[in-house]
This record gives sequence, C-alpha cells and structure tokens, in this order.
Amino acid sequence: MDLAASPLLTDLYQLNMIQAYLEHGETETAVFEFFVRRLPDRRGFLIAAGLEQALDFLEDLRFSPEDLDWLAKSGRFGTGLLDCLADMRFTGDVHAMPEGTVFFDNEPILRVTAPLPQAQLVETRLINILHFQSLIAAKAARMVLCAPGKLLVDFGLRRAHGAEAGVLAGRASYIAGFAGTATMLAGKLFGIPIYGTMAHSFIQAYDDETAAFEAFARSRPDNLILLIDTYDTEVAARKVVALAPRLDAAGIKIRGVRLDSGDLIALSKSVRRILDEGGLGEVAIFASGGIDEQEMTAMAQQGAPIDGFGIGTSLTTSFDVPALDCAYKLQEYAELPRRKRSAGKATWPGRKQVWRQYDSNGRMCRDILSIESDTHAGEPLIQPVMKDGRRLQPRSTLAEIRARAARGLQQLPEPLRRLEPGARYRVEVTDALVQLAAEVDRRLAGQQRTQP
Amino acid sequence: MDLAASPLLTDLYQLNMIQAYLEHGETETAVFEFFVRRLPDRRGFLIAAGLEQALDFLEDLRFSPEDLDWLAKSGRFGTGLLDCLADMRFTGDVHAMPEGTVFFDNEPILRVTAPLPQAQLVETRLINILHFQSLIAAKAARMVLCAPGKLLVDFGLRRAHGAEAGVLAGRASYIAGFAGTATMLAGKLFGIPIYGTMAHSFIQAYDDETAAFEAFARSRPDNLILLIDTYDTEVAARKVVALAPRLDAAGIKIRGVRLDSGDLIALSKSVRRILDEGGLGEVAIFASGGIDEQEMTAMAQQGAPIDGFGIGTSLTTSFDVPALDCAYKLQEYAELPRRKRSAGKATWPGRKQVWRQYDSNGRMCRDILSIESDTHAGEPLIQPVMKDGRRLQPRSTLAEIRARAARGLQQLPEPLRRLEPGARYRVEVTDALVQLAAEVDRRLAGQQRTQP
Repeated sequence: MDLAASPLLTDLYQLNMIQAYLEHGETETAVFEFFVRRLPDRRGFLIAAGLEQALDFLEDLRFSPEDLDWLAKSGRFGTGLLDCLADMRFTGDVHAMPEGTVFFDNEPILRVTAPLPQAQLVETRLINILHFQSLIAAKAARMVLCAPGKLLVDFGLRRAHGAEAGVLAGRASYIAGFAGTATMLAGKLFGIPIYGTMAHSFIQAYDDETAAFEAFARSRPDNLILLIDTYDTEVAARKVVALAPRLDAAGIKIRGVRLDSGDLIALSKSVRRILDEGGLGEVAIFASGGIDEQEMTAMAQQGAPIDGFGIGTSLTTSFDVPALDCAYKLQEYAELPRRKRSAGKATWPGRKQVWRQYDSNGRMCRDILSIESDTHAGEPLIQPVMKDGRRLQPRSTLAEIRARAARGLQQLPEPLRRLEPGARYRVEVTDALVQLAAEVDRRLAGQQRTQP
Repeated sequence: MDLAASPLLTDLYQLNMIQAYLEHGETETAVFEFFVRRLPDRRGFLIAAGLEQALDFLEDLRFSPEDLDWLAKSGRFGTGLLDCLADMRFTGDVHAMPEGTVFFDNEPILRVTAPLPQAQLVETRLINILHFQSLIAAKAARMVLCAPGKLLVDFGLRRAHGAEAGVLAGRASYIAGFAGTATMLAGKLFGIPIYGTMAHSFIQAYDDETAAFEAFARSRPDNLILLIDTYDTEVAARKVVALAPRLDAAGIKIRGVRLDSGDLIALSKSVRRILDEGGLGEVAIFASGGIDEQEMTAMAQQGAPIDGFGIGTSLTTSFDVPALDCAYKLQEYAELPRRKRSAGKATWPGRKQVWRQYDSNGRMCRDILSIESDTHAGEPLIQPVMKDGRRLQPRSTLAEIRARAARGLQQLPEPLRRLEPGARYRVEVTDALVQLAAEVDRRLAGQQRTQP
C-alpha cells in the first residue's frame, strides 16, 4: 500500500464533521489557509517546502474500495457519507507561495478553496506534508548560512521519524542548499545527488585497519573517503599517509578522510597536520557525528580545517525545534469571512496576499499581509497553482526551487541570518484586514445568543 | 510505490561497502546489535517497539527490477553488486526483546545474525524503524504514568514527521497505554481504537455556535463531544447547558466538552462548575492544545477537573527529546568478536543477553548484560524471533504487546517513574564480558601496524 497517498491519513473528526456537513447541506465553498502562527525564537525565518507533495496528494485523492469497505464495516458512518467519499475527488483551487520562498509569522503559504467537505478532509495530511518539509528546510538553511563554502550532506535517514521523513528530509535540505544526501531512495525519487563514505563495520570486519582501507579503496576508488576514527584517529591518519603511495601507484586518489567521534576541532587540526606533512595536502577532511549548526559555528570560529559535514539527527529531526506552531484554518465560508478567536490562537479572516518589499540593497525589509483583492507595493508571494483540482503549471524542478531558496537566503536582513536572530522580521497587517476582522467580530456578536 | 518496504531506504555507503565486501570475499556471518548507548537525562527507561515492522521489512526485502535498473543506470556499481542485489533475500536470524519490554542503556533490543552484506544493507532502515517507535512509546509512557485514570488519545498525525511517523506514533502510543488515536489509517492498519470530536472550522462554518453544536449533535449523536473554545469558552459552556435538554428530548446525550486553548486549569474549573450547576455533572471535560506530561502533572497537582487529553505534537515528535543516541553495531564477524573503540562510542563485543532481576515486591532492581552463552540469575529478555529469514512465531497482537508494556510500567522502580528520573537504573556488565572486550583489544593491538 502506498501509505503517502492514503485518504485515511486524516483524523476521525474530519469524517464526523463531513457527515454532519452533508446532512445539513453545508457544502458550499470554503477557504482554508495554512500558516505558522509564530516563529520559534530560534528561527528568524522559515522556508516554504512540500507544495509538490501536497499537490500530488490532492490530485491523487480517492478512496479505494478497500478503504470504503473498512469504513462501512466500522459501523460509524451513514451511507450518505460513504457515497460521498466513494465519489470524492479534489475539485478545488489552490494558491501558494512557491517552494523555496522565505516566509514569516502568520503568512499563508497555502490556500485551499473547495467545497467544505473536501477542504476539511485534506486538512490533516496537508499540514503533515507542509509542516515537516518547511521545518526541515528552515533547519537546513541555518546550517547552510553558518557553513559557507562547506560541503553539507544529509546523513539522517536512520534517526528520521520513519521512512517518509527520511526521504523528504533529503529533499527539504537539498532545497535549502545542502549538496546532497546519503539516502538512496531520496536520490532515486528526486534526483538529488547522493554521497557516501564507509562505516565502522567495514573497518571492524578486517581487524587490520590498513587492510580495510586498502580493500575499500581498491573496490570503490571514486570519491574515496576513508573513515579514520574506529580505533585511534591520529594513528589511522598516519596509516592513510603510509597507504597513499601504494594507492597512487594503482591510480587511486584519496579524496578525503572522515572523523566521526572525539574532539572534532582538535582532531581536525592534528589530522590536517599529519596529512599535510605526509604530502596529502589535497586530501579533504569531513566530519560527522551529532553535529549541529552551533557546533559548526564553533568549529569555524576556532579554525577547524574541516571541508564538509555529514549531518544526521540534528537535521532530520530538527532537534532543537522539532515542530512549528502551524495551523490550517477556515478563513471564509459561503462567501463570508470567518475567524477563530480562541485565546492565543485568533486568526486573520478572509483570503490573503503577502507583499514583500526590499531595501535599496535588495534585502527584504518588510512584508505586508493584506486582503487578497487589495493591491500594495511589493512582490506578491501567493500565486495560483491548482484550478479545479488540476495543476496550473508543470512541476517545478528541484533546481528552480533550490535557486529560489538561495536567493531568499541572500536577501535576508543580516540579523535574521544569525543563529540567534537579532530581530523579528516586520510583517505588517493592513488597516483593511484589521477592519475586516472587526467586522467579522461584530457580525458574530450580533448572531451569538448567550441564552439560546 | 510502497515507500516503507523499499530496499533503497538505505545509505549509499552500505552499497559501497557491500560491493567491496563481495569483491574481497567478506561474506561470512556477521552479528550486529541495535541498542541505545545512553538514555537521555529525561528518560528513566525506554520501551522496545517496532519489532513487527522490522521483521516485515526483513521478510519482504527484495529489489524490484525498477530499483535494479536505476542502480545500474547510476553507473556507480559493478555487475557483481547488481547481481547480488537482484538475488538478495534476508536469510539470517533475528533475536530481540519482545515489543513492549522496558529497556535501558547499552541493552540490545535486536540482534541480526546474517551474511555480512545482508546485515549491512538493512542497518539504516532497521534503526529508522526501531528508534522511532521506541522513542514514541517511551514518551507516551511518561504521559500514561503522570495521568493515571485519564483517557489519553493521540491527536498528533498533523505535526508528526510525515505519514509513516503519524501512523506508527499511533501504534507506539497505544502500546504504551494510550486509549487510542484520532488517525484513521492507524485504526485501519492496526485495529487501534479511534477517537474524534469536532474542529473549530465546524463551529465557524455556522456563525451561531449553538446552531453548530446542535447540527453536529444531531448528525453524530454517539460519543458526542462539543468543542467549546472557538469564541469564549465559558459562554459556550452555558450554551451547552441550555442546549442539553433539547438534545435530551431527542435522545442525544452529551458525553463531553473539549477545551483547546487558554488557561486550561482555570477554564476546566469554571466549566466544571457551569456544567455541574446546569445539571450536567456526567458530562466529561477533555483538553487538548499543546499539552505535554509536564502540563498534565501541573494540572493534576492543581486539581484541574479534566477527564481526558488529546495529545498531539509533544507526543508524535517526542518534542523534548526527538531522538535517541542509538546504534546498530558489528559485534562479531567470522566467529570473532569485534569492537568499536571510538571516543565516547565504544561498544561491548560479541552476542549478548540481558537478565532482569526483581526485588521481593516484584519491582525491577537490576539488569545484567552478559555474553549470550553465559547463564545468570534473572529473566532472559532476548529471544529468537526469526530463523533463516522467517518468523519463528505468529505476529504478536497489539493487545499482548500492550499488556507487556503495562506490566513493565508497574514493575518500574519508583524513582524511574518520575518525570525527572531520581536515579539511573543499574545495568551491570559481567566480568566475562569485560574480559572479552579486553581480549578483543589485545587481538587488535597485535594485528594493528602503526607503520604498515
């Protein structure tokens, strides 16, 4: 079964509500927007990612006979709902920020306009897709910013939260500027460059470390990177120096060594010295093993001669901030703007647009959150991407998305590029939108009856 | 495509190493063990979970013609490797702790005994499966321990890291003692009880909150739970009181109300009072909205009259500790014990067994980590589960696994049941295992040549 496309990637309450909507004729057009309420303190910006998978999910939405049979046998639902689900296809419109776009608090990155039951059904999976990839792209971008010129590779499938997370983390980190991933399936599905070295088990299977290096080198001579921390890193570096002439005679060039444990700053310096003194100045040093953006920054500050990093857990789980405060909220129904007013979770009603303004240096200086139909100065970020359930454009290539993210990172104001953001970005809500919210509140106040 | 079963859920370096193993005839029997090196400070114990999915992966392991074609076209691999992968099935043995078993630092919960290329190929996905479910089961168990008698339901698919994480978090939390999940697909795949209420969008689609409550109640009268925080929680509670007689006349009983925002302690008390004064003493109060085990503890201490919790993000991302320091390491190859000695990551060599001892009250008091073939007092936790690539027993039912976890939680020493564990559990390494490690070190020292 293709888990990723299952329409049962939804919460029971969505189906409960759809049945009630159907019974009460509440099937008019609904507008939902997905946004992050407030960025975490340690995130100065986010990067929109996951739209292609979200559109795939919408285009492919259908209940299989087996799904319908299971739902019927559950005894929970009436035939009205089951018939509706049997025929359900996504026939709505989608507007979105293109993938790779930098975004901020309260800015919708996706809007769904569809009959209420459809728009409700897909809530859970759309959040699931957009939240995770945007989370990982933002985390990866922090690493990209703090390690300019370094080769960054995703090593994180093993501790990612399941198969899909592992594969999509490869995609999201590549969007944000990583060079590639170690995950074969991410390479196959998305055409992302794949990287790989060797593991401790290979060394251990031989007892003699030099014999292991040589066996590996002769079998995998291209892009040869030797792992040198299995027993004693500096001793192993000297073995690499001793082995190099023999490999050279066989036409095999050592591209690099990898450190995976210990004091990486001190070891990288001593290994660099050993390699240089041994005539291996061209051999690069790669590091891995629980590295995050704080450590990369410390390494750079202390002059660790490390040329590239394999980043695993900290990237693919977004370890310091493993989730964002995001939501997919009803903003309009049956042509009336709507608004949730729950404490700390109030939303801006209606369909919205985000206008991005730049200073004279081309840096982002403020965004304007407006009613969609209003016009403001700046670059409108939200564009139509799906009409009547069909994509309006061909799929974006990852190269295009990656280039957009790279431009966004260049255009970030300096304080937001820091690991501890020095400021929050200005997202101004227009007067018209504030007034619209007040109108919704007045309409609700008129219709609410405390004692019905 | 069934992402979960893809043999390409592996790292490039595994394939690089396999090619080298094949070329050098390193295809003898290897023994790898999966374990957590050191429990996080905020975890007094972990719960083994994911074994069924791990065994499924091993039983189903095969490369499709499409996979092989893609690998061949990549130009990275020789025909020797491609032929090997085309025929590759998992033919090895697996020993494991049964799912639901409580475990601690350095204790293997899974051992693979197989020809080296097979055992190497499956490393990445086995870690990916076992790590995530064990992580979530442990997180869920903390919540179960701090909220005795409360109904706990997984609400976390939307912010889980992808589809598989969402579904498997439902499974892992049910193992640990949750009552069920909101995720439909987890209900379908695993037979877990599913729970659902209603969302803010339903209320918003009506403007009039009472009209929304009544419409929902008439369509979904069973297990009726009304969401009352969309506009003003206390006002909505009074509307529920006013509506109840009309629903009662139609034979509809309100089971509960749900709070999802604001000061849940204060609101639960005021809502309880409103409901009780309105003759709705039987109506339960459920809470959701960013709740974790710390908050549940605070609510209990302050006497918040909450009967159940919907737990989302904190559960399905294991927010405070989103990853464990785990590994799958080569412990024996070609009948010789092996050992990694990297700084901070040294491993105990050879095949191992864990013996659990209990005090006179039936509480766990210490575990002994021994060489597999030795015998010690206590309950041996690691059992054979797969032989020659086939399961030895029928699948465990979730009910059995859940019962095992419940027993484990009852048997935990008191300090480990606390949210901030008061002590670390004693895992004693036997003298024989310490000696074996020293022998491995001596053998390696004899064979290593610093200047080859």
